[in-house]
Amino acid sequence: MTRIEGRRRQAGRSSGGVPQRPFGQIDRRTPWLCVISDDQVEAIHHAALDVLAQQGMRVLHPPARDLFAKAGARVEGDTVRLDPGLVEERLKTIPDSFTLGARNPAKSLRIGGAVCVYASVGGPAYVMCNDKGRRDGTFAEMCDFLRLVQGLNVIHQEGGGPFEPLDLPASTRHLDIYHAQIRHLDKSWQTQTLGHARTMDGIEMAAIMLGVAPEGLRDRPVLLGIINTNSPLQLDIPMAEGLIALAEYGQVNVITPFTLAGAMAPVTLAGALVLQHAEAMAGIVLTQIVRPGVPVMYGGFTSNVDMRSGSPAFGTPEYAKAAQASGQLARHIGVPFRSSNVTAANAVDAQAAYESQMALWGALTGGAHLLEHAAGWLHGGLTASFEKLILDAEMLQMMDAWSEPLATTAADLALDAIREAGAGGHFFGTAHTMERYEHAFHAPMLSNWDNYPTWLQRGGIDAAARANRVWKELLAQAEDPPLDPGIDEALSAYVARRKAEGGAPMN
Amino acid sequence: MTRIEGRRRQAGRSSGGVPQRPFGQIDRRTPWLCVISDDQVEAIHHAALDVLAQQGMRVLHPPARDLFAKAGARVEGDTVRLDPGLVEERLKTIPDSFTLGARNPAKSLRIGGAVCVYASVGGPAYVMCNDKGRRDGTFAEMCDFLRLVQGLNVIHQEGGGPFEPLDLPASTRHLDIYHAQIRHLDKSWQTQTLGHARTMDGIEMAAIMLGVAPEGLRDRPVLLGIINTNSPLQLDIPMAEGLIALAEYGQVNVITPFTLAGAMAPVTLAGALVLQHAEAMAGIVLTQIVRPGVPVMYGGFTSNVDMRSGSPAFGTPEYAKAAQASGQLARHIGVPFRSSNVTAANAVDAQAAYESQMALWGALTGGAHLLEHAAGWLHGGLTASFEKLILDAEMLQMMDAWSEPLATTAADLALDAIREAGAGGHFFGTAHTMERYEHAFHAPMLSNWDNYPTWLQRGGIDAAARANRVWKELLAQAEDPPLDPGIDEALSAYVARRKAEGGAPMN
Repeated sequence: MTRIEGRRRQAGRSSGGVPQRPFGQIDRRTPWLCVISDDQVEAIHHAALDVLAQQGMRVLHPPARDLFAKAGARVEGDTVRLDPGLVEERLKTIPDSFTLGARNPAKSLRIGGAVCVYASVGGPAYVMCNDKGRRDGTFAEMCDFLRLVQGLNVIHQEGGGPFEPLDLPASTRHLDIYHAQIRHLDKSWQTQTLGHARTMDGIEMAAIMLGVAPEGLRDRPVLLGIINTNSPLQLDIPMAEGLIALAEYGQVNVITPFTLAGAMAPVTLAGALVLQHAEAMAGIVLTQIVRPGVPVMYGGFTSNVDMRSGSPAFGTPEYAKAAQASGQLARHIGVPFRSSNVTAANAVDAQAAYESQMALWGALTGGAHLLEHAAGWLHGGLTASFEKLILDAEMLQMMDAWSEPLATTAADLALDAIREAGAGGHFFGTAHTMERYEHAFHAPMLSNWDNYPTWLQRGGIDAAARANRVWKELLAQAEDPPLDPGIDEALSAYVARRKAEGGAPMN
Repeated sequence: MTRIEGRRRQAGRSSGGVPQRPFGQIDRRTPWLCVISDDQVEAIHHAALDVLAQQGMRVLHPPARDLFAKAGARVEGDTVRLDPGLVEERLKTIPDSFTLGARNPAKSLRIGGAVCVYASVGGPAYVMCNDKGRRDGTFAEMCDFLRLVQGLNVIHQEGGGPFEPLDLPASTRHLDIYHAQIRHLDKSWQTQTLGHARTMDGIEMAAIMLGVAPEGLRDRPVLLGIINTNSPLQLDIPMAEGLIALAEYGQVNVITPFTLAGAMAPVTLAGALVLQHAEAMAGIVLTQIVRPGVPVMYGGFTSNVDMRSGSPAFGTPEYAKAAQASGQLARHIGVPFRSSNVTAANAVDAQAAYESQMALWGALTGGAHLLEHAAGWLHGGLTASFEKLILDAEMLQMMDAWSEPLATTAADLALDAIREAGAGGHFFGTAHTMERYEHAFHAPMLSNWDNYPTWLQRGGIDAAARANRVWKELLAQAEDPPLDPGIDEALSAYVARRKAEGGAPMN
């Protein structure tokens, strides 16, 4: 095969536009990287149990305190203390793996075991792209972002609204977001959890999407929501309401303390992990009190501040190490583990890539079952970036290609090809190459491998500028997945009714 | 501690300018990541033995063929065939670890075991910086690059000349490079290996540097040189000459086949690894024939081409996986392992960072004992970049900080601090934080953690532009390490004599 022939054949391959792997979760076969010993895991676990027993959590929501009290916790004022026996008993009912349904059953997800779910960025205040810089987001742009999340095969799940559509009123915005998530995605999507009303709206609309009553979801997890404790050692009212509603309806809480070492957590990583582990266990226990056996996940989000400024830092060496240790802690208590793909960078530059890579390797070698903010997160989570979405999608595709097993059949060992090429020969033209070259290697959507003079001649376009072209190409091709018109009408009717009622009060 | 106080204190810490970790190799405590099973390692090893026995290597240098023949190899024409028994017998004499001396004994390096040597980029044709773009290099600029390599603590070893100083004549250029390496560095440096004369000049000048005769180096490894086989299955004359000279004088060959899957190697990773393993073993065996027990390293450099264009790709998923499998193959035969930090990117952008990160994680979790091109490599190795040097130094510092053990003493678990801060409190002001914050976390030399408005206000400088500032600051501070004037004179005399003799003939 000459290079020119190769190019021609390749043109056929990439006729679909941007090269992508098919949708699907990869089984990871390498052992998890353990950065602490089993004794150290025990030490952190026992210190966390000690914190819950001695110091306790401040739980601001009276019904949550009542649930804890009825289960045997010691409640004084708003402080809830949990004895180790109570915690360990409640941990026993947690499933170590489960299936999370999606509108398109072919896109249902496995959670637990050797696979990971990649969820797109959720929650930023701002949106950004190369053309218009950082700005407040609109609903129309948010829908574009969702279309890209749908179109990027490597993203398994939408992460709960990529950014705030600030052209919509705050108290009903979540209804339009849910409706958009259902319309533009046949993938799994995350619900919002800020208070009872928003959480119940997510559950109700997911039920309508699937043509069942909300009660029909109790043994059918289809929604996942992030619950952040207010570190240190607090669970506030909106989060407690969200947690309880999700658990009551059999849906998946991801209990994620925001333990920023040096600010809301001790300056030592071990201390931050003790606090994370204590808060995570408190929330996890509450889900099992509400509904024993309900799926729940352990969120590890320990990072550190920049001690010069107090700013949060992400994708640091400490972050990666904490992610791997968090995976060990989650496995110790038998709870599926959530980590994230994070950076504090201000541009889609080398820093954004290396911080995200540190986070990706930390999460994926650490045994994460959910990679939150897997694509699109910038500015320490304040901004969703269209170009970062593409950069991350490329890096996720690379991690998946890396996870593909290295085959060593006789044909793979290629002794015949080595004989055919001969000493000093080349392999371009061997039969062995001709049979395999089209799918032999990861085909990038973002990387450019031109030689330097060619790259210059073609405009010297860097990775951030190429990412801009890629998302525009993907958006131009985007098609909404088919949705039963009856279901869409029922969703519209639900949204209209809830808007008329005033939506969700601001917490 | 308020944020302002924090800033003031930090100012004291970073008064030396660019934040750096001290010079030193980190013990890695996490187990290596194994991407293939022991059976697969055996399958590749045996296939490689089969290649050496059946097909053999083409060895173009008659004295090298004679050495093989005397050791029991079957030589026909220029083809050398090695029986498995001969190979396995010769592998037994290889040390699994050794010390590599440096001009400054405090900068001597351990090779083998749980540590890695980070060597700066070696061998590119061009040099590049943000200010002047890519261009032919000069000797003066090369000396600046060496000063930065000396000044960057995280770099343990200079990699054999960062780029060609094209203002110097080709046949004597290596003499000026060696002299510059000795003058500007008290760290370990690599020698050139292209032919007998260049290699012997390196050995002679290293001996002068240490005040001994070349024979005095036979049991004192101080030089390391890269030997590339001409894949597939060829060892050319200059490389064979270099290999033999280094081995005769007790110095370290790093046998590195350039097995680019789909071009000079089979399109399957397993096939490329078979070829790599065969060629590496052939070269390694030759070193032990020349001098049994001489230290030698196994170089893994398997990557893949872009099948669209035939261009080499680096830092791909296949590259990372091959690095990890190569570490397994090297450990299988008990030879210290060399990997590299590589990228095919054309700019110091997100692609350069993520490809290098893939290579770094592949190498360091794969058990590399030498990370070649650890800092400064761009354009698939055609260019040494001043900004990439800084980007890589930052990423290496991060990998080292990640490798620091996570301590879990009672003080680290921080139960007192958690009690002191209290539910809903903060940790900035706790005694626990005050005692530790100055050295609690990795202090970056390149990352910027300003919030976005502040970053914009300060000029919106991306990572590549910041790297430009960092190397200029480091260069402004650079000081050559002291060198005995008598030694410097002796080196000058040697260089003058060898130039008068015509240097090294072009191969």
